[in-house]
Amino acid sequence: MTVSLLQTIPRPAHSQNAPRARHVRVALAGCGVVGSELARLIDAHAPAIESAQHIRLEVVSVLVRDTLRARSVPVARNRFTNDVPEFLASNADIVVEAIGGLEPAGRIARATLARGGRLVTANKALIADAGDELVALARTNGARIDFEAAVGGGIPIIRSLRNSLRDAPVQRIAAILNGTTNFILTRIEEGASFADALAAAQAAGFAEADPTRDLDGTDSADKLRILAWLAFGLAPRDVDVRCIGVLPDPEALVREAHARGEAVRLVARCERQGARVTASVQPLRVPRGSLFARTIDEQNVISLDLGWNQPIVLSGPGAGGRPTATALLGDLVCS
Amino acid sequence: MTVSLLQTIPRPAHSQNAPRARHVRVALAGCGVVGSELARLIDAHAPAIESAQHIRLEVVSVLVRDTLRARSVPVARNRFTNDVPEFLASNADIVVEAIGGLEPAGRIARATLARGGRLVTANKALIADAGDELVALARTNGARIDFEAAVGGGIPIIRSLRNSLRDAPVQRIAAILNGTTNFILTRIEEGASFADALAAAQAAGFAEADPTRDLDGTDSADKLRILAWLAFGLAPRDVDVRCIGVLPDPEALVREAHARGEAVRLVARCERQGARVTASVQPLRVPRGSLFARTIDEQNVISLDLGWNQPIVLSGPGAGGRPTATALLGDLVCS
Repeated sequence: MTVSLLQTIPRPAHSQNAPRARHVRVALAGCGVVGSELARLIDAHAPAIESAQHIRLEVVSVLVRDTLRARSVPVARNRFTNDVPEFLASNADIVVEAIGGLEPAGRIARATLARGGRLVTANKALIADAGDELVALARTNGARIDFEAAVGGGIPIIRSLRNSLRDAPVQRIAAILNGTTNFILTRIEEGASFADALAAAQAAGFAEADPTRDLDGTDSADKLRILAWLAFGLAPRDVDVRCIGVLPDPEALVREAHARGEAVRLVARCERQGARVTASVQPLRVPRGSLFARTIDEQNVISLDLGWNQPIVLSGPGAGGRPTATALLGDLVCS
Repeated sequence: MTVSLLQTIPRPAHSQNAPRARHVRVALAGCGVVGSELARLIDAHAPAIESAQHIRLEVVSVLVRDTLRARSVPVARNRFTNDVPEFLASNADIVVEAIGGLEPAGRIARATLARGGRLVTANKALIADAGDELVALARTNGARIDFEAAVGGGIPIIRSLRNSLRDAPVQRIAAILNGTTNFILTRIEEGASFADALAAAQAAGFAEADPTRDLDGTDSADKLRILAWLAFGLAPRDVDVRCIGVLPDPEALVREAHARGEAVRLVARCERQGARVTASVQPLRVPRGSLFARTIDEQNVISLDLGWNQPIVLSGPGAGGRPTATALLGDLVCS
């Protein structure tokens, strides 16, 4: 039985007094899986964004390593550069940083914020290292930094912790924060070898050429540091995470869990105990049917215990170009 | 095996140059379960908010029906009034509306926004009726309206849809949006009678004296209208929801589902099909172990299908004074 009423969505009114769209110049650092997807999203959504929000996004500069490589992105070739000073000289209204790693990402971030610009970044390593410093730099210079895409891919966890839940009494965080590792564990559960599972994760655009940071827990630890910073107030760099990854033998971990009728997941946990915070990333056996066991493929999940009857739980795609680029676009268009 | 490192959270630095806290005068309409909890939260969190965000919240006026009734809220008796014009004359920086229903809530909302003030409301009926009009009124007058608490209790769904997911391609929403009904269905599943389950919901502060709007689906339909408005852009009042509640006999619904090894949930669904939107609220049988069957007690859940590999799912306490008041507080302190 399907019960539904059909109705038509009215188109946005275009009155003659509609405000002129503000031109927003975007500079994009990085044109890999996420950066190129963002360029395509900006192109595809430009008319809707202009009509609804009266801003016209234009990508004016793209920083890449190799300017000669062919790319399927809707940006003119002459806007590509491999020179950081030239990229920064574009003085764009918003700089999107999607290259990852500490440098030159840190230099780009600091230069943008120091001149009072807006920075949108997907860089968990940089935010885990210097998020508090960058937020302070932004405040001092009337600049702004957003980083929804740094944790949880398309899941709106960062803005939730920075806004709605800012004064909520988070006591404990338990999460699956690395989509690549989770995808690989799920595939091995289904019978694949580690090598095949890793190859599939790379083919899907989840895993880097060198997936060590995913598999050894470093990436999860960076993201946990960011969540602990936002929830508990200590600087991300000061969050000491005891970190054990799924290497060297994820197949053995899955096998051991399977023998007990359980699944294995790479779990990031963080807890406030009085004035102290404990934090860890480690493979844990979890019961079949549990929240974490049901978190499969590249999915991420974040459970926030606030001492209420139920935790607040957010889940969704934690990796992949489209969800991550959508989170960047959200930061781009949010005032 | 517990792996953890203890560490100390640094206290916020109180430099001599710290900015003076801005005094923010709050007027609170309604002092029931949610309103009184908010007054207590403001009192309890005031020092932390002043230290971290440099704002000092003070409740300057409270609108109630009966000014003589004894209340355990940390607000002086002489600040209570039962007179709407006197309440509005306080010209508070932020007006919090937690009385519910269309009037006098609508009058308070419109007066506040028309004078360029800030309105924070938990009122799903009002937003479902006139959310787009109130947002437009706010925009015209340089005012602001926030309504995180109107849907999903403590779950940060509203800000997520208004910000991070604003340009995300939501195609379908499936949700459990009424904590009272879900609590009652869960209790009946466990063997309670409808009458006892309802009494327990009322004792816990979830259900109103008259729970008809919860049980007949009206409350869920209001909340679905709000979500459809934010996700699909049509005015909330124009979202036609085919609505069937769990009355007259929720025990029979649970019994029938149980006979098939299933559970029953009051499910709100909304879908974009080309330029059209379909919307319904109805009791559905759901498989044991499914996302909706696992949503128990007063929990709410919202699943957003964006055409990605996995939906984005947010869940948490959908009713109760503390979670709802925490959502109001989040709106109060968010810039």
